[in-house]
Formats: sequence, C-alpha cells, structure tokens
Amino acid sequence: MPQDVLGLAGVAVCAVTGVLEAGRKQIDLFGVVVIALVAALGGGTLRDLLLARPVFWVVDHDYLVAALLAGLATFAVARLVRLPQRLFLIPDALGLALFTILGTRIALELNAHWLVASLMGVITGVFGGIVRDVLCNEVPLVFSGELYATAAWSGALLLILTRAQDMHGDIAVAAPTVAVFLIRMAGIHWRIKLPRFSMR
Amino acid sequence: MPQDVLGLAGVAVCAVTGVLEAGRKQIDLFGVVVIALVAALGGGTLRDLLLARPVFWVVDHDYLVAALLAGLATFAVARLVRLPQRLFLIPDALGLALFTILGTRIALELNAHWLVASLMGVITGVFGGIVRDVLCNEVPLVFSGELYATAAWSGALLLILTRAQDMHGDIAVAAPTVAVFLIRMAGIHWRIKLPRFSMR
Amino acid sequence: MPQDVLGLAGVAVCAVTGVLEAGRKQIDLFGVVVIALVAALGGGTLRDLLLARPVFWVVDHDYLVAALLAGLATFAVARLVRLPQRLFLIPDALGLALFTILGTRIALELNAHWLVASLMGVITGVFGGIVRDVLCNEVPLVFSGELYATAAWSGALLLILTRAQDMHGDIAVAAPTVAVFLIRMAGIHWRIKLPRFSMR
Repeated sequence: MPQDVLGLAGVAVCAVTGVLEAGRKQIDLFGVVVIALVAALGGGTLRDLLLARPVFWVVDHDYLVAALLAGLATFAVARLVRLPQRLFLIPDALGLALFTILGTRIALELNAHWLVASLMGVITGVFGGIVRDVLCNEVPLVFSGELYATAAWSGALLLILTRAQDMHGDIAVAAPTVAVFLIRMAGIHWRIKLPRFSMR
Repeated sequence: MPQDVLGLAGVAVCAVTGVLEAGRKQIDLFGVVVIALVAALGGGTLRDLLLARPVFWVVDHDYLVAALLAGLATFAVARLVRLPQRLFLIPDALGLALFTILGTRIALELNAHWLVASLMGVITGVFGGIVRDVLCNEVPLVFSGELYATAAWSGALLLILTRAQDMHGDIAVAAPTVAVFLIRMAGIHWRIKLPRFSMR
Repeated sequence: MPQDVLGLAGVAVCAVTGVLEAGRKQIDLFGVVVIALVAALGGGTLRDLLLARPVFWVVDHDYLVAALLAGLATFAVARLVRLPQRLFLIPDALGLALFTILGTRIALELNAHWLVASLMGVITGVFGGIVRDVLCNEVPLVFSGELYATAAWSGALLLILTRAQDMHGDIAVAAPTVAVFLIRMAGIHWRIKLPRFSMR
C-alpha cells in the first residue's frame, strides 16, 4: 500500500480524535480546529524535523485538506448523533498504528539505525496525541494508558524484523499495523498496564 | 515596507508583551528575559523550522538585540510608571498583526499553497503568545480570546487575495496588517467570541 | 577533550536525572524511559534544529544507547539503595555544565554571533531539564532555582572570552565547564537567587 494512503488515513482518524476530545471541553470553534490539526499533523511534523526532511503537510497540502475535512465531518456527525465517549479510543488506536508503522518505514528508508527508526515510529505515533491531550488539559493517554507506547514499539520492532527477513510488500506492512491496533485494543479491554516504577 | 522592518517591529512589541505578562507573576529577572524572548521569537522560529528556512534570529542577531532592548526598556518604564493591566492587549494585537502578515508573505514567497501559507501566517502570529501564556500559567489568549486567530486568519486571507489581484507594494501589505489589528481590537471592545462547540 | 566524550557524558548524567525525578512520581516504566530520554536528548535536539544541523542522536545512535544504559543503571541502583532526594541536583548541575559548554562550542564553530552562541549554550543546557520537569508536573528548576541559567550563561560567556583570547585546548573548555558547575552548586548551597521582578 502506498505511503500516502496510509498517511492520509492516519491524518484523518487523528483529526477525528481531536474533535471528539475537544468536544468534551468548552472550547470555541477555532480551538477545536487547532486541536484537530495538532492531533493529525503533530507526530509527523516532529518526525520530519528530526529526520531533516521537508515537513509533509507543507510540501503536500492534501494532508491539511484531509485533516480539515475529517474534522468538519466529525463535527457534523457529533451534532446529530450522540457518540459514546469511549468510541474515541478506536480512531486513536488506529491512528497510533498507522503513524507508528509509517514513521518507522520512513526512517528505515533514510537508513536510520534500527533503534533510531523504532523510536521515530513511536514518536510519530504518540506525539500528536500528547499535544492534543495537553491542550485539552488531560493526562496524555500515553502516560496513563494501557499498553500505548508499548503497542507502538512492538509494532515498530516487528516491522524491522520482517524487513530484516527480506519480507516486503503489503503483508510486511499490514501485519505490524494490525499488531499495534490489536495490542492496544487488548490493553484497553483487559486493562493491562505496565508496572509502575517506584523508587525506594 | 521591507520585511526586516516589519520583523523588528513585531519582535519588539512581542517582547514588550512578555515583560508585561511576566511582571504580573512572581518570576525572577532571568525568567522575565526568557519569557520576553520566547514571546518575541517563538512564532517566527516555528515558521522557519516548518518551512526549512534558516532560523531568522540565528542568522541575524539584530532580532535578538531588538527583543532584549525592547524588554529592558519595558522593564525600566514599568518600574517608574504604573501601567494599566489591559494595556498589554495593544502590543499583543500589534504583534499578532505584524507577525501574521510577515509569516504569510514569507510562505507565499516560497511558493507554498495558499492554505499552507495562511496557516503559516496564523502560526507565526499566535505561537509566541501561546508559549508565553503557558510559561506564565495563563490560559492562552488564543483559546479564551475574542477573535484572536480569526483576526489573524482573515488578514492572511486578505493578503493572499490582494496578491492574487496582482496588487503589490506597501498598501497590499499595510491593509491586511491594519485589518488584523482592527478586527482583534473590535473583538476585545465588543467582546465578540466564536460560538463554543458542544457535542451531544 | 573531544566533543563526543563531553556529549556522551552529558547525555548519561541527564538520563540519570530523568529517572531520579520520574521515580518520585507514580509513572509507569515506559514513562520513566521517555522522561530519561527527553532529559538527555531534549536540549541538544532543539539546538541542532535551531542551527539547522542534523540531529545528533539521529545521526549517531550511540547517544541513544548511552541514555538508555544510564537510565537502566540508575533504575537498578535506585531499587537496591535508597538515594537521598537532593542527590538528583548533582547530576543535574553536571549535565547543565557539560551541555552549556558543548552547545556554545558547536554554535561558535558554525560562526554564530557571540550573543547567539551564548544563548544556544544556555538552550542546550536548560531545555532538556525544562521538558523533564514539565512532564513530571514540577515547576522547572530553571525558573524557581538558584543561579541556574545565570550559571550557564556565565560559563558560556567565559568560553567565548577564552576563545577571543586565542586560548584553545582542554583548559579553555574545562575551565568554563567547572565554572558552571561550581556557580550552580554555590547557588544551591548558599540559596542565592536572582531578585524577583515585580511591576508596580
């Protein structure tokens, strides 16, 4: 599957999470749009800056349009139908999966070391959501949450392993994407959390 | 009017807002200088990173000197005369206007798409103030405020329209700058706010 | 002393401060690793972005490994031995000293103006700690603290002076590094603070 389809899908679902989260707060229309854009574009922007690539949505404004359209559509639906609050976790997990795998791929193609590439995947996956949650005055899901960054990191490592095995093509990308999504969903469903670290 | 005059004026008025806001808090001298610099240089720095340009104040240290001098002058005046609290909103609106139009122009000159260019203008205009307010533990003016980003975006679009009409020169820049300032001032005076978005 | 030795030492001690601070909070294992990485890599990352250099840990993954190893070692020690809380201030001061001088040197080598170079040193020295403290929900040490940025700025200016005197080599680097550390330690010990700025 071409990278830009994955990217546009990731941008759209993350814009949706921004609108759903901002909608629970008393934020004005412009603020909702800002939070949707930040959730959709934040992770990839940081990845591109760190990798010294041109920022993706500056070069190709389709991403900006996709984020705005997805945000406005969510807005329209949310005014008509009452959406259950936890629904928001599904597009969030989907965005995490798409962006993590995309970020890892892009870093690998620039010949980054596997440790750097996997971290770049995690950053792409989680950063937009962190800024979204901070702007909405929520504890970032990544810190409180059930297998959030762990899911992302596992998927990034799985992608790197399949590449090392010379597996390419759609399955080598789809499998780790699905893995991130399922690990995250399993984490939410069975409330699996990492142990907390407490110093003596 | 050359870009660097607009830029220096914007940097100076934004440094003033940083000192005025930090002065209401119990922050030490160094902290006040940091907040003045962040308010003055933050928006343009993010714009330059996103557009992959050299960061303006790294290349030309005059901007750094202008920010420091404006900050110190404000400091000196504020110790002699009691300034009314709301005064701060005037340099803030001026900085918003100058930086929005400057940011939009720079992006247009790099042949950015109009949607990207207008967003770049808004980012240049609002970002320094957002970080200033967050460091001072205030709700960012842009989120609580009366026609803040809306004023910036209108001005950016107006600039783009005049360009499309082949209007160049001082008026094509001055008109949208004045427009941003007046819309923001009207928003403050008549307390015009965007509707809040509330989901069902 | 070569720059990468200074850099690796700075990364390691800053990762230690991240683990020690996060260990006082109820943060899960992944969060502790993130905070250690941010403390270790944050300042240098911002410096490299501002100077339009390749980001140091993306180019050379040794820094990432050093941060992870130092973090894990601290974690292991902190589970065995009860560490006094204020111990954390010593690696923090060491990291401030190493990163400030390294940042200033790098900026000078790129022919930055001395004012820009000294600011770049301060940014390299303090930024990782600011993000670490914000993520741990603490007031950044740099704002509340005793001679924090002042120590960094003095050291940066001292390095610039020795360069201007054509002094090179190990002493010209070691002296300002030790100066930053000692000024900061003196500030903590005698509780020296800058005057607070209060507006009328």
